[in-house]
Amino acid sequence: MTVFDIVKSSVDSVVAEGAQAASCPAEVASNSDRIITMLPSSPHVKNCFTADDGILSTVQPGTLILDSSTIDPMMSKSVSELAQAKGAVYMDAPVSGGIMAAKGATLTFMVGGPEDKFPEAKEILSLMGKNVVHCGDVSTGQAAKICNNMLLGITMIGVSEAMNLGKRLGLDPKQLAHILNTSSGRCWSSDTYNPCPGVLENVPSSNNYQGGFQTALMTKDLGLAQDAATATQSPNPLGSAAHQMYRVLCNHGYDKLDFSSVYKFLQEQEKKN
Amino acid sequence: MTVFDIVKSSVDSVVAEGAQAASCPAEVASNSDRIITMLPSSPHVKNCFTADDGILSTVQPGTLILDSSTIDPMMSKSVSELAQAKGAVYMDAPVSGGIMAAKGATLTFMVGGPEDKFPEAKEILSLMGKNVVHCGDVSTGQAAKICNNMLLGITMIGVSEAMNLGKRLGLDPKQLAHILNTSSGRCWSSDTYNPCPGVLENVPSSNNYQGGFQTALMTKDLGLAQDAATATQSPNPLGSAAHQMYRVLCNHGYDKLDFSSVYKFLQEQEKKN
Amino acid sequence: MTVFDIVKSSVDSVVAEGAQAASCPAEVASNSDRIITMLPSSPHVKNCFTADDGILSTVQPGTLILDSSTIDPMMSKSVSELAQAKGAVYMDAPVSGGIMAAKGATLTFMVGGPEDKFPEAKEILSLMGKNVVHCGDVSTGQAAKICNNMLLGITMIGVSEAMNLGKRLGLDPKQLAHILNTSSGRCWSSDTYNPCPGVLENVPSSNNYQGGFQTALMTKDLGLAQDAATATQSPNPLGSAAHQMYRVLCNHGYDKLDFSSVYKFLQEQEKKN
Amino acid sequence: MTVFDIVKSSVDSVVAEGAQAASCPAEVASNSDRIITMLPSSPHVKNCFTADDGILSTVQPGTLILDSSTIDPMMSKSVSELAQAKGAVYMDAPVSGGIMAAKGATLTFMVGGPEDKFPEAKEILSLMGKNVVHCGDVSTGQAAKICNNMLLGITMIGVSEAMNLGKRLGLDPKQLAHILNTSSGRCWSSDTYNPCPGVLENVPSSNNYQGGFQTALMTKDLGLAQDAATATQSPNPLGSAAHQMYRVLCNHGYDKLDFSSVYKFLQEQEKKN
Repeated sequence: MTVFDIVKSSVDSVVAEGAQAASCPAEVASNSDRIITMLPSSPHVKNCFTADDGILSTVQPGTLILDSSTIDPMMSKSVSELAQAKGAVYMDAPVSGGIMAAKGATLTFMVGGPEDKFPEAKEILSLMGKNVVHCGDVSTGQAAKICNNMLLGITMIGVSEAMNLGKRLGLDPKQLAHILNTSSGRCWSSDTYNPCPGVLENVPSSNNYQGGFQTALMTKDLGLAQDAATATQSPNPLGSAAHQMYRVLCNHGYDKLDFSSVYKFLQEQEKKN
Repeated sequence: MTVFDIVKSSVDSVVAEGAQAASCPAEVASNSDRIITMLPSSPHVKNCFTADDGILSTVQPGTLILDSSTIDPMMSKSVSELAQAKGAVYMDAPVSGGIMAAKGATLTFMVGGPEDKFPEAKEILSLMGKNVVHCGDVSTGQAAKICNNMLLGITMIGVSEAMNLGKRLGLDPKQLAHILNTSSGRCWSSDTYNPCPGVLENVPSSNNYQGGFQTALMTKDLGLAQDAATATQSPNPLGSAAHQMYRVLCNHGYDKLDFSSVYKFLQEQEKKN
Repeated sequence: MTVFDIVKSSVDSVVAEGAQAASCPAEVASNSDRIITMLPSSPHVKNCFTADDGILSTVQPGTLILDSSTIDPMMSKSVSELAQAKGAVYMDAPVSGGIMAAKGATLTFMVGGPEDKFPEAKEILSLMGKNVVHCGDVSTGQAAKICNNMLLGITMIGVSEAMNLGKRLGLDPKQLAHILNTSSGRCWSSDTYNPCPGVLENVPSSNNYQGGFQTALMTKDLGLAQDAATATQSPNPLGSAAHQMYRVLCNHGYDKLDFSSVYKFLQEQEKKN
Repeated sequence: MTVFDIVKSSVDSVVAEGAQAASCPAEVASNSDRIITMLPSSPHVKNCFTADDGILSTVQPGTLILDSSTIDPMMSKSVSELAQAKGAVYMDAPVSGGIMAAKGATLTFMVGGPEDKFPEAKEILSLMGKNVVHCGDVSTGQAAKICNNMLLGITMIGVSEAMNLGKRLGLDPKQLAHILNTSSGRCWSSDTYNPCPGVLENVPSSNNYQGGFQTALMTKDLGLAQDAATATQSPNPLGSAAHQMYRVLCNHGYDKLDFSSVYKFLQEQEKKN
């Protein structure tokens, strides 16, 4: 296995277990017929593939590329076309689940690309995840992740508003959560990841919003949803409002906290009043 | 049993089964030690209780009043105080579940009022519902219903935005719903009442948005949430945006359709583009 | 002149200049045929007029009452009817202009009530203001003030967003303000009260947002607009979003600052990023 | 003068007055030391400059390029760098004012680029416009236009909400407009381009929303503002809400109407209720 990262210590830790270090993405590509990439944003992906020492400069025909970055679906389509011109297959395979799921190999992968290549992709990704779903053509893995996370951001703010309003109207938070969870307001943000401290154990809200999925990352994903919605002329009034809300949190010191801290943001206001 | 309604045919149908008709709420109250009321809005409740021929003009000490209207929690508190002055107990007991649940006696009641009176209330309400929850002091039944329905309105619009965006990005609706329902975007509006036609059977979206919970009623409940939030100075950015969205639907000919028709509202735009 | 206030020092300062103190609103009313009231909110107005020792308990037929409170238009209508039953005329006359305008007698009064009584009202109010406008029937003074302040809240946030975005895109704030002020973005919030420090002199933004019109008061007025919009089923997507934005500011320590501090709220985020 | 357009009739009409037709942008560039471009969107600009037969394939050193397209500021920066590599100077010079202003040579140009080249740019642009403003470095012309139009979209919806709410509260529209225009709600959308039919003459709202600035174009500009705000992490809660509102209008048959038709959109709801 040949590996590359701009953070040398990350490379070293894998080399210590037997991998071979490469000096650039091109060197990885010239040594491999199956490549996995995971980068923070669209420009990074573009650079990693199209730079002079990028993957596409040396990629072999027949290579399978699985890109687990969460990026603009347009970028996935664009890199896929360039890969195809070299005879390689690029599939987008963004991931969800967080650090704990990564360590336990229980991640979820949402995969976009040609159906006949999916079994090969699944074989590889199953080593890291327990849930590998084929979503459709290339870029639909990104689309699925963006749609899910946009909905997640909306429901988390919605639950926070409902829990906060209910508390101010005199309801006990645990009792309110119970009612929501057995009624039509039921959602993952309420029954599995409730943002109100003390309602559930072992969730970030009961641990000062440490761990979990950072507000900064949720804000990034909501920004991707905005870009996709603008490009496809899809109305999304609540998605854009959620993006703005997380932008405000992100920049008032909540960026490193779990994204359920939007409840704390509302709650603090109560105290000041 | 003594009954009253301003719609005479409703009264007649119950009288035909053995009930006795009253000429006004006061006559019901003078004949009963347990009273159930269900009215469309706060002013109706106020009038039914405080008018010259209203319930409070003749109510007996010791009477238990269960009000199943969905109204402003402030109004519930206010009527409760007036009832208390007459030696009666008023509990708010708003209901959810719709016409089918009413016929099948499987409604949910959210009850606010003194804990020692709850068993008596539950005994009565269990004849109509299978889920009778004590939420806390008087008005907390209203609070619970308002919070649940505000969250429901938010998640329904959120699911509609996500399904619509996903479709435009190339995802198959059933596949997208499956991914959401097994991921963190999971919610009642997605897995039980999906607004995209064809994803689920036996829901309004697969029946031209007929039946179900009317947009006009959701708009009313979101208005109650707004009033409660303004009165308690609770921030609710998505709750207010959802209210505005349903206000627009309500007034563009969607008021009589099921509230999941917000998906259709977005979908129609796609066709026009 | 007979005066009453719950803050004794306010009464004393006017008594020192020759006024006579009353022990309650009823005593003012029994001594006066022209009454001016100014109270912070709807419940205060209701109490001042309808309590046992309130104005309506002793008001004389033919009395002209000018209420300069900013309150729910419904409350103005309701008090007007009660006054009419006593043979008195109630007109709503909310005011804008702030402390400096009050001292300089240059306030603006928006007056609602019978046209034939307007000249008498104007004669009195002109002693305090230079701009006295008849808006229509009773409660339209409130309506005009609420509509103006809702629009003011929207434009102030809009200018703040535009100035902040422009700055981040590399524009000089003074240059951007000049362009907006000579283009279609021109508004009072931009050309007379610009929220970006240093663009204009002698405005709160150039004085650490001290003085001016407090965020808490803008939030209250936007809440009144929300209530009026919900009651009249008027859609107001930006009005409600502005209300939520000011609610957040209000509760994060900006309540005592001038309402143009919404720019600072956005600006601070920039620094943290 | 050498001209090119993909619409042949546009070229013909100018050729009839003495211009020379080119077969592609490259031919224009090889014949000219001053070039003006005006295209509908970022991808069109990219193609016009960087395609095989694009401007940059033949542009001469020392050429001054003025691009009057309204596009993503990032694209302006990017094309500017490519032009610079060829020894040419690219300045962005988006325009506002509409068809009437174009015919009367009274357009406004917002120009971004090197200060020492501005006099030359102004000399050319003054033939078409009466207001030519230097905004700063390249891309700041776009920035200024985007900020102005974002604010314009916000104020237009704000005025429409205020006029509609005021009318429902019993105010006469002309009277309300007068009050707003002499108070702190004053803005161009209210005093020069009021969206309520009958308040002003000679504006689109008094002509069935024909003519003026189309809703579809406003929606496009608000989308550019969204993209710029997401890219620079600038919060813009009202800008994004305005974008969503215009997206809904655009797709419910209002795309060809003047953007002040947002008032009609609200007004129609009233009639249906």
